[in-house]
Amino acid sequence: MSRIVILGAGVMGSALAVPARDNGHAVILGTTPLDADVLAALTRDRAAHPRLKAPLDPAVAVRDAAAITPEDVAAADLVIVGVSSPGIGWAADQIVRLAPRAPIAIVTKGLVAMEDGAPQTYADALPALVAARGGTMPAFVGIGGPCIARELAERRMTAVVYASRDRDAARRAAGLLATDSYDVALSDDVVGVEACAALKNFLTIGVSAMMGAYRRSGEPVKNPVARAFQQAVDEMTTICAWLGGEPQTAHGLAGLGDLHVTVGGGRNSRLGVHLGEGLTIAEIVAGPMRGETVEGVDVARSLKRGIAAAQVGGALPARLPLTDAIIAAVEGAPFDPRAALGAGGGSA
Amino acid sequence: MSRIVILGAGVMGSALAVPARDNGHAVILGTTPLDADVLAALTRDRAAHPRLKAPLDPAVAVRDAAAITPEDVAAADLVIVGVSSPGIGWAADQIVRLAPRAPIAIVTKGLVAMEDGAPQTYADALPALVAARGGTMPAFVGIGGPCIARELAERRMTAVVYASRDRDAARRAAGLLATDSYDVALSDDVVGVEACAALKNFLTIGVSAMMGAYRRSGEPVKNPVARAFQQAVDEMTTICAWLGGEPQTAHGLAGLGDLHVTVGGGRNSRLGVHLGEGLTIAEIVAGPMRGETVEGVDVARSLKRGIAAAQVGGALPARLPLTDAIIAAVEGAPFDPRAALGAGGGSA
Repeated sequence: MSRIVILGAGVMGSALAVPARDNGHAVILGTTPLDADVLAALTRDRAAHPRLKAPLDPAVAVRDAAAITPEDVAAADLVIVGVSSPGIGWAADQIVRLAPRAPIAIVTKGLVAMEDGAPQTYADALPALVAARGGTMPAFVGIGGPCIARELAERRMTAVVYASRDRDAARRAAGLLATDSYDVALSDDVVGVEACAALKNFLTIGVSAMMGAYRRSGEPVKNPVARAFQQAVDEMTTICAWLGGEPQTAHGLAGLGDLHVTVGGGRNSRLGVHLGEGLTIAEIVAGPMRGETVEGVDVARSLKRGIAAAQVGGALPARLPLTDAIIAAVEGAPFDPRAALGAGGGSA
Repeated sequence: MSRIVILGAGVMGSALAVPARDNGHAVILGTTPLDADVLAALTRDRAAHPRLKAPLDPAVAVRDAAAITPEDVAAADLVIVGVSSPGIGWAADQIVRLAPRAPIAIVTKGLVAMEDGAPQTYADALPALVAARGGTMPAFVGIGGPCIARELAERRMTAVVYASRDRDAARRAAGLLATDSYDVALSDDVVGVEACAALKNFLTIGVSAMMGAYRRSGEPVKNPVARAFQQAVDEMTTICAWLGGEPQTAHGLAGLGDLHVTVGGGRNSRLGVHLGEGLTIAEIVAGPMRGETVEGVDVARSLKRGIAAAQVGGALPARLPLTDAIIAAVEGAPFDPRAALGAGGGSA
């Protein structure tokens, strides 16, 4: 039996308790200040996660993360950060307070714009946040790949990739969590996996916009959606390499695999459909998606300045039609599906 | 005005008459012996294509291909072969009889096993069939990319790729057919485009099988489908290169773009779903898909001997889990979704 501490009881952090328990580990699931509903519900009934909608093993120790001690973490073989991107600063605070030495596996997906505008993946940004707070970051293991949390919690066949500069840390994390239905591949390209994990949320907005823009008897037209999907993979490959990742990571589970599942549903996809239908971002956040966090929007904002500078400087192609259209729409412009498809100048 | 002769009045051949007419060309649409229903219906009412279910311009000259003369073809700027794969021999006969000198653009998708078992794309197999009949093959232009014929005929936004060893022929064909809603990119990798066009039908069977095998309240589970989609792209890349194409063509419109649209519906996908549900190929062809041509099945048969030999000889990896599982299922075995996913040994 090993010990695993999960920081963040959102759907993905909580779902990872399932393979952890299936492998017989002792699991502490710590709720963030934004998880008060989860703490209250799971305290009453371990089967009643209000967002995951799948039961957790009663042996999972659920508590406010503030009640997790450095001693709990010193005894852990793995720490999992399961917050959504707005919680990354909170996660850095916890890492400083708890000072884990075991590897930290991260399911949070996002990019951080540095002062000069260049976007950085969490593989570099999280250690920098921890260092800026005077702490020390242990081995960083990024988790990518197509994984809907509820399906993981229901033990549906899932395949993901664990990536780290520290291969041994990735292997140990995978050894703790892989099960018969949760297949874990390993990668050294942690920057690429983190880049793709963030970019797929962002690019999903553009692919899903085609579903809103092109309809036939109420159903999405398939040719432009498939075309946009291919173009999204193409632009992901280019941007992944620009961010310092391996281009082929965009063709793997963390790239086109996760893009596939993300286009299939969720908040990034719903936002995209609304944009394609002709609503502006202001109308969407004031209307059908009021109060919802859409991670791909934050990625767009983190990318904006850096991408524009790289396009001017020649480090990126002058036109990334889908990327350019998504960023423009997030900035308030109507989404232009023809421009997003680069119509008239496609590549093979 | 240019002149275009289309051989084969199935859905795709017929749909190409739409951009051809939109560009103002004179179009002759020739029906094969298998298109008797189309000839009869269009003779009565040009809007009533029984399979395309979209109207054709009354100015399209529809006739039995047997009534097309060498003079018609001598005056043509482009010949389009629009038969399905069982019609490729008929197409070779027509090319010999009509002796076109204009480029021939092909939408037919398939592979031909040579005597030693090695599969060949139509880029090489069709010229060989024509030569074996004593004819001369003009420039071959392969058409790939995500294009549902009915959506093309309805002028929905579509993007395809025209590939040829003769770049000028591809450019001329594209110049004749590209419209505001039918975007044509060019490629030199005709073997890769032809390989991917065939492989996507074949690999769709495996991806769609996951939709049948993994269900939740009647809906496909998304994680294994996304995983299989990524694996299909991976195996397509490997097999495309083995067949002599460029690996990156599998990441383009003719590769993952067309795979995306093909998984979304059609006969290859329906066959896959039935296999995933546990039916054998014998039960499917005797039951729910009686009498239907499934091109991916023919591709599996064309690949079988060559792939096995290449795996033994080391020219291909010993395990191509999805490919192996599809071929085994087409040979009569039950489809094994776990084996098809290579569960326990995934790559990133």
